[in-house]
Amino acid sequence: SQEVSDFIPYKGIRYPKAEMLKRSREFYQFMDKRRTVRDFSDKKIPKEVIDNIVLAAATAPSGAHKQPWTFCIVSDPGIKAKIREAAEQEEYENYNGRMSEEWLEDLQPFGTDWHKPFLETAPYLIIIFKKAYDLVNGEKHKNYYVNESVGIATGVLLTAIHNAGLVSLTHTPSPMNFLHEILDRPENERAFLLIPVGYADKEAKVPNLQRKTKEEVVVYYKDKS
Amino acid sequence: SQEVSDFIPYKGIRYPKAEMLKRSREFYQFMDKRRTVRDFSDKKIPKEVIDNIVLAAATAPSGAHKQPWTFCIVSDPGIKAKIREAAEQEEYENYNGRMSEEWLEDLQPFGTDWHKPFLETAPYLIIIFKKAYDLVNGEKHKNYYVNESVGIATGVLLTAIHNAGLVSLTHTPSPMNFLHEILDRPENERAFLLIPVGYADKEAKVPNLQRKTKEEVVVYYKDKS
Ligand SMILES: N[C@@H](Cc1ccc(O)c(I)c1)C(=O)O
Ligand SMILES: N[C@@H](Cc1ccc(O)c(I)c1)C(=O)O
Repeated sequence: SQEVSDFIPYKGIRYPKAEMLKRSREFYQFMDKRRTVRDFSDKKIPKEVIDNIVLAAATAPSGAHKQPWTFCIVSDPGIKAKIREAAEQEEYENYNGRMSEEWLEDLQPFGTDWHKPFLETAPYLIIIFKKAYDLVNGEKHKNYYVNESVGIATGVLLTAIHNAGLVSLTHTPSPMNFLHEILDRPENERAFLLIPVGYADKEAKVPNLQRKTKEEVVVYYKDKS
Repeated sequence: SQEVSDFIPYKGIRYPKAEMLKRSREFYQFMDKRRTVRDFSDKKIPKEVIDNIVLAAATAPSGAHKQPWTFCIVSDPGIKAKIREAAEQEEYENYNGRMSEEWLEDLQPFGTDWHKPFLETAPYLIIIFKKAYDLVNGEKHKNYYVNESVGIATGVLLTAIHNAGLVSLTHTPSPMNFLHEILDRPENERAFLLIPVGYADKEAKVPNLQRKTKEEVVVYYKDKS
């Protein structure tokens, strides 16, 4: 078991006020240019870029620092084809009976259907698995706040992808159990999200949607003094 | 209801290969310097920085673009004191009976206990609420992949905080219902995480932990051709 009270100083990175303001503004403006994309180019990407993106994601905080995630990186065309086939089978059922009228209506603006060509076009698929528990010598050790932790790591992942000038799709071909089988994952892992990564196609289009305004998502409880 | 097939071209931000590599490497290295911090300075932060941080988070993708989140930003000392009091009450119970022996052992390296002074020291508390459904004229409209979506937004939030040279704690004083009451939130919202934000204290210390290596978190399914 781990040493108790082994602590080190943390020197954050303090910026002068004006620079902090500028950095925060530019980061927001940069992130605001991110869009979820479904039209991928098949142009290759250096593996090192994907490594850095996943390593960035893996710096995320997690409950009791358990880091309850595995990032599966698929570039093999045969495996991508298998994933596409299984995903399209599930999606066919989703679009033809399993999704409610309300749900189908909510998806209208995205123009999606059961066809998922991007699962073969995108040079990389990153499949994030969450671990409800760790297996240590066959013994189960519980992890904590697993959904929160893996969600946060995914947020860092999407930021890293955008930062590299690449695009992604947060995809959920449900139920996602087929990913567990195709990728031969251990029993303590469950697929969390499937994220194709690549360059946007030169002709890529995205739905003309707006984001909620500050007034719609932020509530202030201000110092009244 | 929304227009069907209203699409616009998406011109991503393509970088030359060498620059993409450099950006991905530097982003990873920068994120790797982030640490969760519990020792906050009470130094004030411009509200505009907090605005930009939350706006960045709100650019996250979400199921059917429902953006199922509210960011409550608390700077009022009275409300912070109330939150601290309620959080410490819950944590006292957690540390004195509600958490298992295994859990308490897993927390040893962090040196945490039920005292939560940072809830008053940090200049801002950001409380993220998730919405399982939206209320439109009293009618319930389901949201989708709410935990995934709000988790991703939180990942962007933590990245934005780090990018500004500030520090954060992903805090879960459970059960978190008291936040719903103190902040007077509507019935469709549930507290997801409580995140104190500020400068690290000059004397801040963090546990001497390591992150898992690439080999421990990444699995490649490579092109065998
Ligand atoms: N919520 C408690 C206990 C705690 C703390 C850290 C952590 O990673 C986990 I999982 C739980 C507290 O905040 O002290
Ligand atoms: N998984 C299906 C349907 C879908 C699509 C988008 C979206 O935001 C949500 I929620 C569901 C698909 O990928 O087509």
